[in-house]
Amino acid sequence: MNKKKIINDPVYGFISIPDGLIFNLIEHRYFQRLRHIKQTGMTHLVYPGALHTRFYHALGAMHLMSLAIETLRNKGHQISEEEEEAVTIAILLHDVGHGPFSHALEHTIVTGVSHEDISSLLMEKLNEEFQGRLSMAINIFNDTYPRRFLHQLVSGQLDMDRLDYLNRDSFFTGVTEGIVGSDRIIKMLNIIDDQIVVEEKGIYSVEKFLIARRLMYWQVYLHKTGIAAEQVLAKILVRSRELALAGKELFCSPPLCHFLYNTISREDFIHNPEHLNIFTKLDDTDIMSAIKIWVDCDDVVLSTLCRNLVYRNLLHVEITALPPNADLVTSLLAKAADYYKIDIELARYFVFTDTILNNAYKVDDTNIRILMKDNTIKDITDASDSASLAALAKTVKKFITCYPKFLA
Amino acid sequence: MNKKKIINDPVYGFISIPDGLIFNLIEHRYFQRLRHIKQTGMTHLVYPGALHTRFYHALGAMHLMSLAIETLRNKGHQISEEEEEAVTIAILLHDVGHGPFSHALEHTIVTGVSHEDISSLLMEKLNEEFQGRLSMAINIFNDTYPRRFLHQLVSGQLDMDRLDYLNRDSFFTGVTEGIVGSDRIIKMLNIIDDQIVVEEKGIYSVEKFLIARRLMYWQVYLHKTGIAAEQVLAKILVRSRELALAGKELFCSPPLCHFLYNTISREDFIHNPEHLNIFTKLDDTDIMSAIKIWVDCDDVVLSTLCRNLVYRNLLHVEITALPPNADLVTSLLAKAADYYKIDIELARYFVFTDTILNNAYKVDDTNIRILMKDNTIKDITDASDSASLAALAKTVKKFITCYPKFLA
Amino acid sequence: MNKKKIINDPVYGFISIPDGLIFNLIEHRYFQRLRHIKQTGMTHLVYPGALHTRFYHALGAMHLMSLAIETLRNKGHQISEEEEEAVTIAILLHDVGHGPFSHALEHTIVTGVSHEDISSLLMEKLNEEFQGRLSMAINIFNDTYPRRFLHQLVSGQLDMDRLDYLNRDSFFTGVTEGIVGSDRIIKMLNIIDDQIVVEEKGIYSVEKFLIARRLMYWQVYLHKTGIAAEQVLAKILVRSRELALAGKELFCSPPLCHFLYNTISREDFIHNPEHLNIFTKLDDTDIMSAIKIWVDCDDVVLSTLCRNLVYRNLLHVEITALPPNADLVTSLLAKAADYYKIDIELARYFVFTDTILNNAYKVDDTNIRILMKDNTIKDITDASDSASLAALAKTVKKFITCYPKFLA
Amino acid sequence: MNKKKIINDPVYGFISIPDGLIFNLIEHRYFQRLRHIKQTGMTHLVYPGALHTRFYHALGAMHLMSLAIETLRNKGHQISEEEEEAVTIAILLHDVGHGPFSHALEHTIVTGVSHEDISSLLMEKLNEEFQGRLSMAINIFNDTYPRRFLHQLVSGQLDMDRLDYLNRDSFFTGVTEGIVGSDRIIKMLNIIDDQIVVEEKGIYSVEKFLIARRLMYWQVYLHKTGIAAEQVLAKILVRSRELALAGKELFCSPPLCHFLYNTISREDFIHNPEHLNIFTKLDDTDIMSAIKIWVDCDDVVLSTLCRNLVYRNLLHVEITALPPNADLVTSLLAKAADYYKIDIELARYFVFTDTILNNAYKVDDTNIRILMKDNTIKDITDASDSASLAALAKTVKKFITCYPKFLA
Repeated sequence: MNKKKIINDPVYGFISIPDGLIFNLIEHRYFQRLRHIKQTGMTHLVYPGALHTRFYHALGAMHLMSLAIETLRNKGHQISEEEEEAVTIAILLHDVGHGPFSHALEHTIVTGVSHEDISSLLMEKLNEEFQGRLSMAINIFNDTYPRRFLHQLVSGQLDMDRLDYLNRDSFFTGVTEGIVGSDRIIKMLNIIDDQIVVEEKGIYSVEKFLIARRLMYWQVYLHKTGIAAEQVLAKILVRSRELALAGKELFCSPPLCHFLYNTISREDFIHNPEHLNIFTKLDDTDIMSAIKIWVDCDDVVLSTLCRNLVYRNLLHVEITALPPNADLVTSLLAKAADYYKIDIELARYFVFTDTILNNAYKVDDTNIRILMKDNTIKDITDASDSASLAALAKTVKKFITCYPKFLA
Repeated sequence: MNKKKIINDPVYGFISIPDGLIFNLIEHRYFQRLRHIKQTGMTHLVYPGALHTRFYHALGAMHLMSLAIETLRNKGHQISEEEEEAVTIAILLHDVGHGPFSHALEHTIVTGVSHEDISSLLMEKLNEEFQGRLSMAINIFNDTYPRRFLHQLVSGQLDMDRLDYLNRDSFFTGVTEGIVGSDRIIKMLNIIDDQIVVEEKGIYSVEKFLIARRLMYWQVYLHKTGIAAEQVLAKILVRSRELALAGKELFCSPPLCHFLYNTISREDFIHNPEHLNIFTKLDDTDIMSAIKIWVDCDDVVLSTLCRNLVYRNLLHVEITALPPNADLVTSLLAKAADYYKIDIELARYFVFTDTILNNAYKVDDTNIRILMKDNTIKDITDASDSASLAALAKTVKKFITCYPKFLA
Repeated sequence: MNKKKIINDPVYGFISIPDGLIFNLIEHRYFQRLRHIKQTGMTHLVYPGALHTRFYHALGAMHLMSLAIETLRNKGHQISEEEEEAVTIAILLHDVGHGPFSHALEHTIVTGVSHEDISSLLMEKLNEEFQGRLSMAINIFNDTYPRRFLHQLVSGQLDMDRLDYLNRDSFFTGVTEGIVGSDRIIKMLNIIDDQIVVEEKGIYSVEKFLIARRLMYWQVYLHKTGIAAEQVLAKILVRSRELALAGKELFCSPPLCHFLYNTISREDFIHNPEHLNIFTKLDDTDIMSAIKIWVDCDDVVLSTLCRNLVYRNLLHVEITALPPNADLVTSLLAKAADYYKIDIELARYFVFTDTILNNAYKVDDTNIRILMKDNTIKDITDASDSASLAALAKTVKKFITCYPKFLA
Repeated sequence: MNKKKIINDPVYGFISIPDGLIFNLIEHRYFQRLRHIKQTGMTHLVYPGALHTRFYHALGAMHLMSLAIETLRNKGHQISEEEEEAVTIAILLHDVGHGPFSHALEHTIVTGVSHEDISSLLMEKLNEEFQGRLSMAINIFNDTYPRRFLHQLVSGQLDMDRLDYLNRDSFFTGVTEGIVGSDRIIKMLNIIDDQIVVEEKGIYSVEKFLIARRLMYWQVYLHKTGIAAEQVLAKILVRSRELALAGKELFCSPPLCHFLYNTISREDFIHNPEHLNIFTKLDDTDIMSAIKIWVDCDDVVLSTLCRNLVYRNLLHVEITALPPNADLVTSLLAKAADYYKIDIELARYFVFTDTILNNAYKVDDTNIRILMKDNTIKDITDASDSASLAALAKTVKKFITCYPKFLA
């Protein structure tokens, strides 16, 4: 039976699904769940096209991986069929543990368990189901496979994950600034000493990649309205759990109820398979269908937050270079408490501060290596002739202060 | 206060929101609800990018309307500010009455009430809320406004609705065959005797538009897998209502419960505002979050259908030019009943037939008029020099037969 | 030495040049000459972006060939390295014999010798230079190689030539209607009985291809202004040869002079290598730099035609379904003769008729074969469910009448 | 008579030609000449699609100007019809004085006269022909019109010229990194104190614009192979003039002969209209058709340079941060002289040094002003939160050393 399949993709034209095992993993309900988890959380409130999902992103990253493997083989590197399958599975499943709205609700629904933890747990479960055929993929994912360049293709400064999400998020938001020449970068990849390097003539494409990432951060990932929406979303989940744990009855789907009405430790989550199983039934639709109902809840905090989100009357967000003035925040809290006729403590759901950062290029041991024409290896910041990359290397930290619009 | 807003759109670049009233309508919860109603139903199971919503389509059609008005004014036609606002509102709200998954569930949740009916009801409600400022828009929508070309821009053979959805569905599916030169067509529009005409030099663009529509029908709108998914979705709703009315308790969000556990006549729906109000709280997320739960329901019909959809193990669909053989269908029904250990009557949820048609160009009184260089008006099928358009004018009727894959 | 090269291509992203022999052929002056021969003749007068050359088209077609070979191999067909190189060379050089302005001046500069003849002569010369390494390529080009599907990829109803020129001409003109899903079509190719077939699921893409070709014919290849320019260009060459042969001294570059001042028979051209050698030095720039000077020539016919072209004051073109009225033409000739104060015979340079045809799909033995799911082979017109393809199969013949604008 | 015309443009979709005077200027032979002057000189040797012309660029810049005027009027600024026409003419004709291959041959054919000088002279001539209707356009072009923001739209840090050429050069080269969100930037323009400013929310688009420009410089405008080709082209012209002035007979078209065989001072050029008139007959085709012939010239320097260019066997280019070592250059000169059997002086045609710089953002009085939300005006480098712009502000100077490949 020919299971070879082709999927239409407006970003790359076509995505081919390589073989039987990978096809079966894609059809698996763990992976199909990603069809209902938006890649960019609440960003669609700003860019209405940004409804694309983790499912599509994973397929796109898989496609880029096949291009990378082809390029590396053409340059004379031996990569076995088994290694190709394994690295493809690793990239395909790298985000399988994401919960509703991707990053927006991380640490809100299940505390203390990162999406990477859950991805690992799910890969282990799949490995059991598929009789150990995912072992090499898991080793690559965890960076315990000897040929480390394979891990770098999955997770590194210039991995297939980032190349795909920049392209895909650009496409669906229409913020063309984020389009990276993934074809060109991939054609320039090579391996030196088991490390991924970029050949010198690809240097401007790498610069462009770093800049595109930075621009996408500010224009999309850290857009004020998007931040406001995700902060409100997170507060809604915090408040609903608070009410649930206090015994209040709230409408929720069974999987959402499970996580609202129970406090699950990291330990618990990892050792009791029940939690993981229920987690795999949770997606964006559970959250959104509940929030619509909570609009009419009799808790003023929860209902107000839900109304803010559903009718898009979001909090005002101020982004500043300096930490917000504590007195100002205290005064805003008092005003909000007064307005909503609630305690100061509850007013913290509407008035709060946080920090954000745009660290486009971390100067650490996974930096981007350039293979110069004289066969030396340089870091991109040294290889480039412009000072602008050094500037990009600096972490820019910003402070946000959120409060109701009527106080703006 | 400057409420002028710009929305990023990967299809057209930018969409400007014209003025205060229109901005307020867009912010209204009736319109915001469209953010959660996918434009192309379950098509995303085939084309994973097709998650775009009625919300975006309505904004896109509004944008094309502003281009059309500008073109017509540049050609010397007087269109007042008030008319411009009205026709813009009419196109913006033309689909506001769509229920979950657009066409897929029409006549399943509320029987006997079309989405156009509901759009009309919602426009009337909004007209009340906005002190009659939508009256002219409603007249244009209902074709009771004297200047009939305005209605044709909203609903005709070459209206802004169609131009936008072909472009938008093409963009998000990646089926580039559906991209229509909307800019070019709009630049060629003119008005003769209160009717929209296309100037002769736009004739090939119109041909292309008709062909694009036909290709989109077969490749996207009537794609086998998409049809299978929407048929299963519809059967799920039918079965869940059947069970609900028989007293079975099913998980559902309050608005979905309302429509599952009550039988509402057209009469009722129109006269009791309660129904309409609850309808405006219903969207795709209510359906999907319920279906995931029904996977574990103890009714074998409902749980099987839900599993089919959620795990994408859809029915097999056969498209034929001739009606399906009745004996074959009977035999398939018997096999399905046997397999699932259910009655023949219930087996009809898994084995059934239907018809589909691709009528790209209806030869009726709203046909596309071409303004020839000698100032005569011809129908496009007469104006074009090729016989292919006449062929496109023919309705192609096909039969579908759906049955479980294990019987294929 | 690594001669592997990558060329940027806005149409496909990147084009890789496969190996040493092919790289050397591309660097050869015969091939480099194509850099100065516009792909679409004078079309740039209508679509100012259409300045792309035969050089780029040949590289693009070569790129598509590499995709086709990859697809066919993935489907289990054995294609040797040598065959791959040969078919790649055949497509690369298929147009190497084109003269200035591609089709526009064929049969004007050298009469009786087609561009295919010259391509063959040049391939033979290259084969000598490269010690017989082009022999298989020549056999494939001439369809004398036993595996005939290779020839079909070079020249057939669905060859890489057509796929590339439709895409490329669309891109550079901005007439998006001509974009064909070349990726998708190529992915659907297969070989049955040594013939290229398209798998059934590619049927709509093939329909789209045929339609795109038809639309490009009418909108681009047979655009009135383009026809007018090419007709004027051809008349200029005819008149300048007439004057040259009558002994008049005209400015021209040495290679152009050779062909203006000599009458070379087909026999001559084929047997005397001198002619071919000079031909390889002739390109668009020889023609355009001469025409600018001839604007001031004292022959009223030549100077008027050149002025028409250079200042874009072209002839009026009438396209009709019926043959033009002979009396009308006689009367126009008389008026033109009178206006320019020239003989009726010379007036034929300004008033003349011709025929054009748009035969998008020739119903002959090279028709498009579809491999149906039941493994039968059908012609596309039978496999498609619409009558529109049958309509496309008909040749549409049109008549053109050209005459000066002041008589329009 | 309706002279309104629409031109297809793959970059912006459509360009409308606004009115009669502008239409007549476009049809004028001075402007039509730009059809034969490539925008990016010899860049097409690197990026084969880069054959687009000054003609197309000027139309594109005109199109962006109409968008800018529309935006500024929508924000309440009064711009009269006459001013609109004048600023449109100014942008349309800003490059009308460019000679063959744009910048590549400036100061080679006519020494001491810049293309801006020639543009001014041609505008004056056109002003005479059109009875003074270009006076305001000339004032805007020369920055003597009182409303100075109009000049800034034609020539400033963020003018319509730059916006168009970045977009257009990106499109035709396929170097997508240069695409700037011209729509978005233009929508953000405003006028404060008669100066063009960008509203704060457009700040990231401006950053992107500056970065895109920088990337285009290194990847396209200063591409090694492109530099090599343009240097060789310039040397060819220098050598051919040298030979011509020494009395050698060379094939050349009459306008090219005029500039090869005469030494024309700036004074002369400006005061003797004959020179300007002949200059308007000179374009890329004169140069290329001559160079092909000079390949067989008996001057070894000229024939070698021409062969280098025509057969694309260009000089080797080294780009260094430090000035090239003088001894090395001397040694290379000796080797080249020895190889070609020519004097050291003549060897300087093959071995030479030069400097290039990429000054993406000049910190001077025409810097980009941002209108902050608090109504203050800041320079972009102050308004932006990243240090990378400050880095972009630095001029990067590089040295090039060119010499024959056999010495590399």
